[in-house]
Amino acid sequence: MINEEYKKMLEGKSVIRQLSEFATARGKEIGYENVFDYSLGNPSVPVPEKFTEVMIELLKTKSSMELHGYSPSLGITSVKNKIAESLNKRFGMNYTGNHIFPTTGAAGAVAHALRCVTKPGDEVLTFAPYFPEYNLYVNMTGAKLKLVPANTEDFQINFEKLEEMLNENVTALLINTPNNPSGAVYNSKTLAQLSELLNSKQKEYGHDIFIVSDEPYREIVFAGVEAPYVSKFYDNTLSCYSYSKSLSLPGERIGYVAANPRCTDAELISAICGQISRGIGHNCPPSIIQLAVSEVLDQTSDMSVYETNMNLLYNELTGLGFSCVKPGGTFYIFPKALEEDAVSFCQKALKYDLVLVPSDSFGIQGYFRMAYCIDTEKVERSLDALRRFVKENY
Amino acid sequence: MINEEYKKMLEGKSVIRQLSEFATARGKEIGYENVFDYSLGNPSVPVPEKFTEVMIELLKTKSSMELHGYSPSLGITSVKNKIAESLNKRFGMNYTGNHIFPTTGAAGAVAHALRCVTKPGDEVLTFAPYFPEYNLYVNMTGAKLKLVPANTEDFQINFEKLEEMLNENVTALLINTPNNPSGAVYNSKTLAQLSELLNSKQKEYGHDIFIVSDEPYREIVFAGVEAPYVSKFYDNTLSCYSYSKSLSLPGERIGYVAANPRCTDAELISAICGQISRGIGHNCPPSIIQLAVSEVLDQTSDMSVYETNMNLLYNELTGLGFSCVKPGGTFYIFPKALEEDAVSFCQKALKYDLVLVPSDSFGIQGYFRMAYCIDTEKVERSLDALRRFVKENY
Repeated sequence: MINEEYKKMLEGKSVIRQLSEFATARGKEIGYENVFDYSLGNPSVPVPEKFTEVMIELLKTKSSMELHGYSPSLGITSVKNKIAESLNKRFGMNYTGNHIFPTTGAAGAVAHALRCVTKPGDEVLTFAPYFPEYNLYVNMTGAKLKLVPANTEDFQINFEKLEEMLNENVTALLINTPNNPSGAVYNSKTLAQLSELLNSKQKEYGHDIFIVSDEPYREIVFAGVEAPYVSKFYDNTLSCYSYSKSLSLPGERIGYVAANPRCTDAELISAICGQISRGIGHNCPPSIIQLAVSEVLDQTSDMSVYETNMNLLYNELTGLGFSCVKPGGTFYIFPKALEEDAVSFCQKALKYDLVLVPSDSFGIQGYFRMAYCIDTEKVERSLDALRRFVKENY
Repeated sequence: MINEEYKKMLEGKSVIRQLSEFATARGKEIGYENVFDYSLGNPSVPVPEKFTEVMIELLKTKSSMELHGYSPSLGITSVKNKIAESLNKRFGMNYTGNHIFPTTGAAGAVAHALRCVTKPGDEVLTFAPYFPEYNLYVNMTGAKLKLVPANTEDFQINFEKLEEMLNENVTALLINTPNNPSGAVYNSKTLAQLSELLNSKQKEYGHDIFIVSDEPYREIVFAGVEAPYVSKFYDNTLSCYSYSKSLSLPGERIGYVAANPRCTDAELISAICGQISRGIGHNCPPSIIQLAVSEVLDQTSDMSVYETNMNLLYNELTGLGFSCVKPGGTFYIFPKALEEDAVSFCQKALKYDLVLVPSDSFGIQGYFRMAYCIDTEKVERSLDALRRFVKENY
């Protein structure tokens, strides 16, 4: 029989999807270049040329079996070793290939990591504003996602609320830095304080509390911003990464879980992920993509456009009187709306062909998200619409 | 805290993996070419050249965003349409792209399909001998896998036992034709009888009973063997396919679920799979692989070697007095061992560098599996070892 629980999930309409559909439909009327579509976080810059070269080289030179044969169930050893080396060099860690489990992007990484360190009924805490897909990742494990209210001053952690919400049932915290949707990057002070708090709570409760650290935007950090590596601060950390943003290949579904070598059962995490993977039929990211990415680990796409766009928008928005925390990274900005009801605010913006996402689905009211992974030229043209929208409505 | 349930799964040693490790280790001593390794079902023939050409062409001509951008969450529309067309043409079905959900191989397909049509506590029936990974796919959904004993005469369905085991809690049957490990292909009579039985039981119980049909070997069928399309016989069928075997690219993780257009909620199956996928972080097979495979849908690798190998082995085995059902397809053969204890039988064979897999993990005792997806030249060399093994031990 059709599973009713999954069937019911179809009824929930995604606001972001609805907005994106509006943008597409409107684009057919007036030309998509005239719709200022800030709804979707789809990287807008090309993959590094080297990636394409490596792919073609692999296809031309490797035997079919080497290239397209089954990857070992825990990932290709040479690929995992290279990822470990790269992380060690960049962040002063001590990973070996055994601590790395390749996944289908950060989504796969977070879903695997959560299953690894929770059991049904456990509580997982995350922080507003947050990526709404977290609800699905956590619900599907049988654990419960609880939302720690935002620190709206700078979108670092609201420690007062976090301490109130920590209890014996919490076995994992799911954090996301640089953050979607706020653009905030947790600084060393935040991470040190978080580590100290969790270490003391682990002792108090007599059990592990893991940080599942969702880091797909790790490489998109703006000038002068410190972006410390979460796992350096706290042993029980599973770092979840994706090459979707740094190499602009979200469709190829490639990322990993990296288990801190000092975490509980560090040597088993990858093997446990392998068991989870077997059960859901995931069985490793595609071989050729694993092999190709391992040749360009320390490259990124040219992501300077994101910082250019951020500065344009930040300056315009604050000039227009918006209250806005300046993003430290990502390709999102998260200003306060000019009325309490962000949904109504974003509805009005649509009349100016400005597609903004109200903050309600990110777990906080009264804000909106702009995903500025679009051409700078379009950002520039949107500023006039933004000015007219504000002037005529507020 | 580390999930103890998954951790415990690490204790179970896979017999196949142990045998494969033996083969590798022994290969280091005497040269792998001298180990007659019949343990693993890894395709041994190259991908069609056209696949490689298409991949290179895509990389050279498509824009980065077209090629590597996010696939729609239910798969790339043009790819799904082409798969539907190809199935309609070959099997006289009426699929549209909406009935197709691209997955990471047949493993992903079966795992998604099972979640779609069962809920925790339901019973799923499968037939001995069976692929042991089914335990994981079913257990992870919370349903229970029950094993219908084999029909050892021809490895078609044991209907007497099936009728005994059908009850109100059964919501799905998981079948695999052509079958791993037996090589049997269900004929029209079997499928018609199965359909009739299930239709009557659906009426009796007042609920759907789905067939989840695992078909990765659909294209490997030998001369003169009828291989009817399961979904033609029974409306509530979800066909689960993989290109791993037909195109020899198991590492690229590409397959699909095809929902029979006449099944219950046919228009929703793909969308429900999409919800399941979000929760496990799977989010579609890689874009470039979807696009490339869609250009070679009706091609296969040159798989004649499998039939050549099958005939060599079948003739030798029956000549040596083995009782053996002649495989209709796949690259497996499943003879009766020459002693009751198949584990002991296969242990003795190792002394002749013959790596055979005892049947116990396939849900039946006293048989062994040979995966003959290896070079014919090696099969030929192995025959002498086989003869010596039998002569000196039985």
